[in-house]
Amino acid sequence: MDKNLEYKRHTLAHLLALAIRRDFPHALPTIGPAIENGFYYDFDFSGGPAPKDDDIKNIEKNMKKALSSWKNFSHKSVTADEARETFKDNLYKTELIDELEKAGEEITLYTVGEGHFEFTDLCRGGHCDSPSTDIDIDSFRLTSLAGAYWRGSEKNPMLTRIYGLAFNTKDELGAYLAQLEEAKKRDHRKIGQEMELFFIDEMVGKGLVMWLPKGNIIKSEIETFAIESERKAGYERVSTPHIAKEELFLTSGHLPYYKEDMYPPMEMDDGTYYLRAMNCPHHHRIFQHAPKSYRDFPIRLAEYGTVYRNERSGTLAGLLRVRGLDMNDAHIYCRKDQIKEEFKSVLELTMNHFKTFGLTDYWFRLSKWDPNRMDKYFDEPESWEHAESVIREVLVEMRVKFIEVDDEAAFYGPKVDVQFKSIIGREETMSTIQLDFIAKERFGLSYIGADGQKATDVFVIHRAPLSTHERFVAFLIEHFGGNFPLWLSPEQIKIIPVSEVHNAYAAQIYTELKAIGIRASLDTSNESMGKKIRNAKKDRLPYFVVVGDKEVEAKNVTLESRKGESVEMSLSRLGNHLITEIEAKIL
Amino acid sequence: MDKNLEYKRHTLAHLLALAIRRDFPHALPTIGPAIENGFYYDFDFSGGPAPKDDDIKNIEKNMKKALSSWKNFSHKSVTADEARETFKDNLYKTELIDELEKAGEEITLYTVGEGHFEFTDLCRGGHCDSPSTDIDIDSFRLTSLAGAYWRGSEKNPMLTRIYGLAFNTKDELGAYLAQLEEAKKRDHRKIGQEMELFFIDEMVGKGLVMWLPKGNIIKSEIETFAIESERKAGYERVSTPHIAKEELFLTSGHLPYYKEDMYPPMEMDDGTYYLRAMNCPHHHRIFQHAPKSYRDFPIRLAEYGTVYRNERSGTLAGLLRVRGLDMNDAHIYCRKDQIKEEFKSVLELTMNHFKTFGLTDYWFRLSKWDPNRMDKYFDEPESWEHAESVIREVLVEMRVKFIEVDDEAAFYGPKVDVQFKSIIGREETMSTIQLDFIAKERFGLSYIGADGQKATDVFVIHRAPLSTHERFVAFLIEHFGGNFPLWLSPEQIKIIPVSEVHNAYAAQIYTELKAIGIRASLDTSNESMGKKIRNAKKDRLPYFVVVGDKEVEAKNVTLESRKGESVEMSLSRLGNHLITEIEAKIL
Repeated sequence: MDKNLEYKRHTLAHLLALAIRRDFPHALPTIGPAIENGFYYDFDFSGGPAPKDDDIKNIEKNMKKALSSWKNFSHKSVTADEARETFKDNLYKTELIDELEKAGEEITLYTVGEGHFEFTDLCRGGHCDSPSTDIDIDSFRLTSLAGAYWRGSEKNPMLTRIYGLAFNTKDELGAYLAQLEEAKKRDHRKIGQEMELFFIDEMVGKGLVMWLPKGNIIKSEIETFAIESERKAGYERVSTPHIAKEELFLTSGHLPYYKEDMYPPMEMDDGTYYLRAMNCPHHHRIFQHAPKSYRDFPIRLAEYGTVYRNERSGTLAGLLRVRGLDMNDAHIYCRKDQIKEEFKSVLELTMNHFKTFGLTDYWFRLSKWDPNRMDKYFDEPESWEHAESVIREVLVEMRVKFIEVDDEAAFYGPKVDVQFKSIIGREETMSTIQLDFIAKERFGLSYIGADGQKATDVFVIHRAPLSTHERFVAFLIEHFGGNFPLWLSPEQIKIIPVSEVHNAYAAQIYTELKAIGIRASLDTSNESMGKKIRNAKKDRLPYFVVVGDKEVEAKNVTLESRKGESVEMSLSRLGNHLITEIEAKIL
Repeated sequence: MDKNLEYKRHTLAHLLALAIRRDFPHALPTIGPAIENGFYYDFDFSGGPAPKDDDIKNIEKNMKKALSSWKNFSHKSVTADEARETFKDNLYKTELIDELEKAGEEITLYTVGEGHFEFTDLCRGGHCDSPSTDIDIDSFRLTSLAGAYWRGSEKNPMLTRIYGLAFNTKDELGAYLAQLEEAKKRDHRKIGQEMELFFIDEMVGKGLVMWLPKGNIIKSEIETFAIESERKAGYERVSTPHIAKEELFLTSGHLPYYKEDMYPPMEMDDGTYYLRAMNCPHHHRIFQHAPKSYRDFPIRLAEYGTVYRNERSGTLAGLLRVRGLDMNDAHIYCRKDQIKEEFKSVLELTMNHFKTFGLTDYWFRLSKWDPNRMDKYFDEPESWEHAESVIREVLVEMRVKFIEVDDEAAFYGPKVDVQFKSIIGREETMSTIQLDFIAKERFGLSYIGADGQKATDVFVIHRAPLSTHERFVAFLIEHFGGNFPLWLSPEQIKIIPVSEVHNAYAAQIYTELKAIGIRASLDTSNESMGKKIRNAKKDRLPYFVVVGDKEVEAKNVTLESRKGESVEMSLSRLGNHLITEIEAKIL
């Protein structure tokens, strides 16, 4: 956050306290910091009435009134005793003053407002000097009330927190509000429920996704696409159990280092078993199953596998924080001389994936080691230098947007993150391509070289370009606002007969489309035509056709899209028309 | 086992003891029962040398020699003291005599053999009266030596067990030996290893299958086929987590009744979780997620889901006894008036599946309740009568082979098992179609009927026609002896250039086939032509083509099959030829 904006937000928090004290003189102000996008202030209203949601507009109005005449933010240093005297009725401020005194810090009081109403607050500073000129009166807004414990502990009294948004200008505020509005409309949980894509079932457990038939279609289309892309790129597919004995995870190092993030152990008659948190140990064992020759490389093992992470139940939400993660994972085993080519082919595959889904707003982030921090990184300097330099070469040769960051690699190798700016402005890491120097040691991966000798330069690339199903589908829902392209749409076309006499022709269209695998549906309900069309649009169907006298007579259809386009064609062409669009994965 | 055959086998066990006592006079005979397919006898050889595998033929010869003159199996009753005197050097027999005495049972001694060598054994009887005429001298064979603890307890001394096979006739023995030989050749573990289909990894855990790329191709072809068949049959697919909270399994009744067969619980911060042993509870929750109308039925929810069963580690073997079971499960929710039609469509789907895999030697087995055993069956007599009668109608109308058995239904409904006779003569239940009256009560399944009232006649059909992947693939390996039809073959065709000058054309063929999705491979190794062809046959490839001067010049290929057929065609036709065979799933 830039300093000036932070000062404005902090100043506005004080201004909020002033406005509250005016209408709720019994309110005890506690603390009010600047936060991302705005500010808040916590009050104890237990001495009288508390503001309601309806009061927010009025409080905001009073803030603006006070702001216009508030030229200077004056302050003075005081002794602890003077401060305690000023806040003798406020136990919260008193607690803070005692702490400041104990820490030997300077105690300052700031006076908010000017003229007929002022309010003096305890504060360390960090404000605008001239609020009325420094703050655009239309650049902030109060948004909501919430409960919050004093100092965040549930052992303390519950306070009332008032939130505000604040930006540099009215336009910036407007843009942020529009983004919020858009984010709300595109929220994957809301759309997921409207479209019947998935749900979380308390009886099954938190963070475990139940994919409904329609959501499963999206998931399965993504899988088919990824599997076919990878088949062409020379990947082989395997299937491995979702559980394993602790011996495997001791070998991989997940135990004990990662134990807290794993589900608890299960004691069986032949040892201790765990749900896996990653697929790699199983794939390493597949690699090891048969002796390898230098001619066998690269070996690319792929699997849609589920992994389980023991996240705290309180943190779980929708598809973005889950405990069961389903992903198209793969591990590429290559010789040192193949790292560059393999990294490149993974990048190409990844970029092709994103292009197919219409995702363009991303860049790469190369995380490197720090040669001066040997304690932090696996001790194989030549591997680090070779790998980082060939990865950089790949990024340069491919002319992609990328940044490099030092000292951010994993312990066992450098990585490239794919950073996305989502349609609602959130930056996130969609996927990671991780090079791994340590698997060969932990699992003793080796092969027989061209010279007949055992060689151990087996490097592993971990990659899951489409993230997890959970995360990626959430991202796609948001990206398309639920208006999926035809190939991904759970329902692709609805046939709507005008009246009962058109049912037979409608059924014929429906049957012909179903026979060639189109996800068609037929609306023979008793609703009005208008209602049926509105329903199809509300359900986000890419296409619908209305079947009336004209169509029955001409044996044709008018294909109407949710975008409002329409095109007339013979029934015999309709199927091919749709199939072509599906196969080309048109966006 | 028929009584006469049992007597013969038991008699032969005694005869074995006679032959052993002749060559190993220090041997202490213990017990020797008839078993399935033959007999065994356990001896303590600790007083001297023990027979080796090489000795078996000679012991058998001596048995035959003694048998020819052994006209009568004479016996007499004795007192415990007399018996103890007879067996005073044999602590095992003495232990048995003490027990018989304690139990107040009659003690009898049987004399084996006639003439220059006899042996008296302690026995309860159950023999042939006239061994030399009752037993065909060529109808039995000694097979192997093994270790066995006295009375099966590892606290007792280790004895040597000698096994024999015995049947009514020489032909029966021959047929059984041939079947054994065939079973050995077709053993799914042997072929699975030879073809690199799967393995069990001790570090991952017993009973958990690791599917290698080639085995995964078979698994995935089966899945694609099943999913497409079910799409056409109106199934919807879902995906649900492999774990759930105990609340779900308490509702379904798996807890506590099935608890011992489930993996142990995992305690999380929000409750107790279990790996699921069945998919149905999750599917019932999907059904319940949204209110249903009578128009929504039938609802067919399908999923390739994995379930976990806590089998004892000692019992696990290959693909046939596993702890992780992957199967194409589905649950059909229908109204009472739809049971017949749905049962029929499941049977049709099942039979079509089997036909596709070339499996014909099966019949159905309808397990019914017993109206007189109300304690044993869910109390809904009309449902039982209605369901059993419509299922019978379906079986009759479909003109399939079926039998009916009383009092063998599950607690919650009648079922139809599909019984198979495997190619090596083993009868097994491949799949079960189970009707379920109780789910509607346990989960409160209901819908709004045509009259606008709540209705509760929601019947569930559980079905997994292709059994589990593990079991079905084992069955297919055995059935085809690893010679899978083209569409299921992990490797479909091998291109074999005669020498280096033909590599380019061979590579062209390879590339063209790969591009259209044929699983082709190219053998450019330095082996001799003969060796390359033998390798292709050994690897059970359906097809191979040898590319030499003639082919390069004519731009054609000679397609040779593992069956020994060959057909010449232009390169441009080869791809289509193979695709046609694959798509038609020709056996």
